Amino acid sequence: MSSVTENNNNNNNDLSVIPKPGRTVLASAIAKVYTEEIQNKIVQLKSTSHPNGPLLVGFLANQDPAAEMYARWTGKTAESLGVRFELRKFDDKDRLEEGILAANDDDQVDGIIIYFPVFGNAQDQYLQQIVSPEKDVEGLNHLYYQNMYHNIRYLDKEKQLKSILPCTPLAIVKILEYLKLYNTLLPDGNHLYGKKCVVVNRSEIVGRPLAALLANDGATVYSVDINNIQKFTRGSGLKYSKHHVEDLGDYSEELLKKLSQEADIIITGVPSESYQFPTEYVKEGAACINFSSFKNFSEDVKTKASLYVPMTGKVTIAMLIRNMLRLIDNRNAKKQQA
Amino acid sequence: MSSVTENNNNNNNDLSVIPKPGRTVLASAIAKVYTEEIQNKIVQLKSTSHPNGPLLVGFLANQDPAAEMYARWTGKTAESLGVRFELRKFDDKDRLEEGILAANDDDQVDGIIIYFPVFGNAQDQYLQQIVSPEKDVEGLNHLYYQNMYHNIRYLDKEKQLKSILPCTPLAIVKILEYLKLYNTLLPDGNHLYGKKCVVVNRSEIVGRPLAALLANDGATVYSVDINNIQKFTRGSGLKYSKHHVEDLGDYSEELLKKLSQEADIIITGVPSESYQFPTEYVKEGAACINFSSFKNFSEDVKTKASLYVPMTGKVTIAMLIRNMLRLIDNRNAKKQQA
Repeated sequence: MSSVTENNNNNNNDLSVIPKPGRTVLASAIAKVYTEEIQNKIVQLKSTSHPNGPLLVGFLANQDPAAEMYARWTGKTAESLGVRFELRKFDDKDRLEEGILAANDDDQVDGIIIYFPVFGNAQDQYLQQIVSPEKDVEGLNHLYYQNMYHNIRYLDKEKQLKSILPCTPLAIVKILEYLKLYNTLLPDGNHLYGKKCVVVNRSEIVGRPLAALLANDGATVYSVDINNIQKFTRGSGLKYSKHHVEDLGDYSEELLKKLSQEADIIITGVPSESYQFPTEYVKEGAACINFSSFKNFSEDVKTKASLYVPMTGKVTIAMLIRNMLRLIDNRNAKKQQA
Repeated sequence: MSSVTENNNNNNNDLSVIPKPGRTVLASAIAKVYTEEIQNKIVQLKSTSHPNGPLLVGFLANQDPAAEMYARWTGKTAESLGVRFELRKFDDKDRLEEGILAANDDDQVDGIIIYFPVFGNAQDQYLQQIVSPEKDVEGLNHLYYQNMYHNIRYLDKEKQLKSILPCTPLAIVKILEYLKLYNTLLPDGNHLYGKKCVVVNRSEIVGRPLAALLANDGATVYSVDINNIQKFTRGSGLKYSKHHVEDLGDYSEELLKKLSQEADIIITGVPSESYQFPTEYVKEGAACINFSSFKNFSEDVKTKASLYVPMTGKVTIAMLIRNMLRLIDNRNAKKQQA
């Protein structure tokens, strides 16, 4: 113990025990990595096609406090980076579609984000697809999901226009990179080789695409929803090097516990205030990331986890601004072609 | 009474009472209206671009008896009209996506239909959007819904390529035309003026688009789902002559009864074997149409309804073949442009 005491002599705490290695990593710190890149790009745009800076428009048609907070954050972050942000509120949800279509047609608008839920049912998927793919900074258009699943990186045959990735799954991948869980010594497409991941959420927006992304990088992914648990691994299809999906059985606490206790990475996204991922299921030293707007891990997860990211929203916002810059590049390239 | 007896002297029934005017109209009879048009068009295609006739490919990845029956019907109808039909079955649902993408790329394939449910959750919407819009005979691509809601009839600025309509809502409109409920004496866009309609189903696939279509033709539409009842009327938006939606309140039997008893047209699409629309809610002389694969009206509806269409599938199949012919025209036109 003495060597530890000596090595920690700047520390005022009780040094007779090795401090727990568990560390909380905030999304704001991770987002900073991308700040400089984004700011430089915006300075460049201001001296060329966008003298006033790019314009991001948010659409809010609900009174959901989580959506309002997310809208405020988007605005604050955008403006701190040199992006103009305009929030357009709709009391009448049925007028929203017209507002979005007007923004699609407005050459002044560079990016569009809708704060969901609007109707809270399948009609929201209709709205999602209304946003022009050229301004869909969140990458929610079907085109971007399809390209993601099939690892298609360009929108055109000439490979001039880059595709974008859905911003929440992308943010989580960037978080895993920041946490040094992607091993770049391993060959491309295998940076997560040997890693086991549990993803508690299988929505079409985040959970399922995320499981596929991680599997395509070599991980074994256990994808959990209320109905069942599936295993995603990288497939070996002839034409499409797609992930492979296998049903492991109905959801059960036993199965979740067993798989989690072997998992290197646990990612949660349960949209419920009462849900808590049991800390006892977490392997000592695992990395835990929560992308739900409710904290799905309890604070004591730090007694087990090595790295804990309690929320991811700020990284997601950085990614959506990055996506916007890529979409602006695409639009500029198209104008030059025309 | 004697005049009635005299006028019906070929009838062997008891003629002392006027026969109930209620009539059951079968989808097969309505579909026949389109048979000749479709057959002529296919003869023409066989002598030009499609010597072997067009090819429609169905994808089945479930054991749902309703889906299997629908697949058999599609095949039978298609072949009777000169269309080749090929059913591609998948035991592994996760291979289906590859199969669809291969059919998208295969120049021999003219139309694609997926028999849902596949996964039975939101992943099915992902699959729906995977089908190339050029081969999406059911008109399920978001593009076609968006065009329908905004009354956009062409796919290109030059108005050479016609858009198509989602085939089930289209089939119901065609049924209403057959039943002479569209009054063509009224101005265009007002053929249903003065008509009140109840639509029990508000899915994104059929119920909501159908309510919008009927409202855009001048009807007052009460759109009913398990949560609430909404009123659709033709809107008067500046840019988009879109329908207007108003919430009438939570679902209740009282409200449904009140609205139904004033309705000229009642359309049901409840995907449940046990659901029965109460005959007592039907106004004497109303037209009743059921598009669910389960019979949502009981047989005694004929004691109230003037016209009763118990199932609509065969008209839907006629519409999807019509859609396919339009998509072939579009592809031929594009090839000529290229």
